[in-house]
Parts: sequence; C-alpha cells; structure tokens
Amino acid sequence: MSEKLYYSYYDCVNDCKTLLPSINTYNPDAIIAIARGGMILAQLISEAVNLRDIYTINCISYDEEKKFQEVDIFNIPDVKDKKRILIVDDIIDSGETMNEVIKIFKQKYPYIDIKCLSIFYKDTAIIKPNFAIKQTTQWIDFFWEVDLKK
Amino acid sequence: MSEKLYYSYYDCVNDCKTLLPSINTYNPDAIIAIARGGMILAQLISEAVNLRDIYTINCISYDEEKKFQEVDIFNIPDVKDKKRILIVDDIIDSGETMNEVIKIFKQKYPYIDIKCLSIFYKDTAIIKPNFAIKQTTQWIDFFWEVDLKK
Repeated sequence: MSEKLYYSYYDCVNDCKTLLPSINTYNPDAIIAIARGGMILAQLISEAVNLRDIYTINCISYDEEKKFQEVDIFNIPDVKDKKRILIVDDIIDSGETMNEVIKIFKQKYPYIDIKCLSIFYKDTAIIKPNFAIKQTTQWIDFFWEVDLKK
Repeated sequence: MSEKLYYSYYDCVNDCKTLLPSINTYNPDAIIAIARGGMILAQLISEAVNLRDIYTINCISYDEEKKFQEVDIFNIPDVKDKKRILIVDDIIDSGETMNEVIKIFKQKYPYIDIKCLSIFYKDTAIIKPNFAIKQTTQWIDFFWEVDLKK
C-alpha cells in the first residue's frame, strides 16, 4: 500500500488555476458540487469564473460488500434553464457516484451538456473526468479533512 | 472608508477551531450552507464535527435601491427528519439573507431548532449570529474570492 498524500489548500489553489482555462473554454452556466467532497473546490472555481450559479447534490455511498456500491442521491438541484453544467468532486474513485449523478441529470435534462471535474481519479474508475489533474492510487488526505483536526 | 481586510485560509482554519466547542455543544444534526459564501466554511466545519449531513440553499440578493433588499431563495433542502440545524454564512451584512433563510425553515419546519453561524457580522444587521468571531465594519476579501485571481 502506497503512502498517504497530504493535499494542501495551496495545492488546490494551484490545481484550480491549472484547470481554469479548460473550464473557461467549456463555459458552464452552472456548477454542481457533489457534497461533501466537491464543495470547497466548487466554490473556489465558481468565484474564479464569476459564476453565481452553484448548487450541491447529496450523495452517500454505502459499501455493502457487494460487487457494486449503493449510492443514495438526493437534493437534486433544479437546472432546467441551464445549457452546460459542470459537476465537481474531489476524487473519482470507483466512479459509481459520478456515474449515477450524471445519469440522473441526463435523464431529467436530456438537452443539457454535462461535463465533470475532479482533482484526482483512479485508473480503475468506471468513468473518467473531463477535467482532472492527476491519476492516483494513493490515499489522499484532503486539507479540509485534516487541517481542523491538527 | 476603512481599509480592506484579507481573510486567509489559515485565519479561517483558526476561527473554525475557535468555534468548534460551541458547535459541538449545540450538536447540530445538519449543516446548511448559504451559497456561495458559506460553502467552504460549512464543508470545513462538517468535516471537523464528522457530520455528513451538509446541504446548501441558494440565495441571491438584489440591491433594488429600496429600503429593503430583495432576496431570492431557492433549492431549499429537505431537513424534515432533523432536530437541530446550523445555518452557515461567511458574513452577516444587512442580515436580510440570513433572516429570510431562517424564516423559511421556521415556517416549513416549526419543530426544528435553528441556530446560525458567520465569521463576521455587522453591528447594524437585523439579526445577530448565534456563533461568530468578529464584529466588523471593514470590507473583507475572503481567500476564496481572491486567491485564484492572484
């Protein structure tokens, strides 16, 4: 098992800056944060691209020792007037959560263009992010998970 | 006009640490972030108190050059099974937004205990936060508003 990686606030600022040109090219009219992991990222990005239309969606994964994870998704935001949404999470691990979230938006709003962003992703995930920084196999300690506990 | 104050990520971590004992005493079973300003704060706090139940509510204020601000509030999360909610924003300025949000939750869920938190508040606000760090009259440059633009 590889070591843990500490991902700091300043790593995050730099990575968001790296992603900004691609996000601006896509030009989303709404950002959807997957709670909790995607909220800080989504707020930072929304401020940088001057987009006030930022929403969250709640996803809770249950590891049921089954082949597939169960994902409970609720508080789906209303984006009916949007054209291009960007769904944001910290890491795409198995990919089940992001996959389910995209499926829900595609079903409900088939006319909306959907892209997704994560800082990290695993090579084994069932879905790859459109915008990302690093493929990883490490356990990541995100700053928001650890800095207040120091 | 007083100078601008830059509020850094580390100021925020320290202030959240200061607020944690009071939040733990209140023991909320859901945290509601007012988007966008409260999202980063709310995620940090929810991680620190190990509470996965974190939601957002969207509020957009319009300065209509009237005596009172108009506040448009939408994507109200479902908290019907909760007992004690904590509503989080970065700053309570006029207080109109927080006041309206609390009113909505009180009307919809009269049996829920509601408290609110902000880092900063103005003495002239129509509502005072239950948990806060500093009264201020300054313009605050929050790190999430400026760090990606540096």
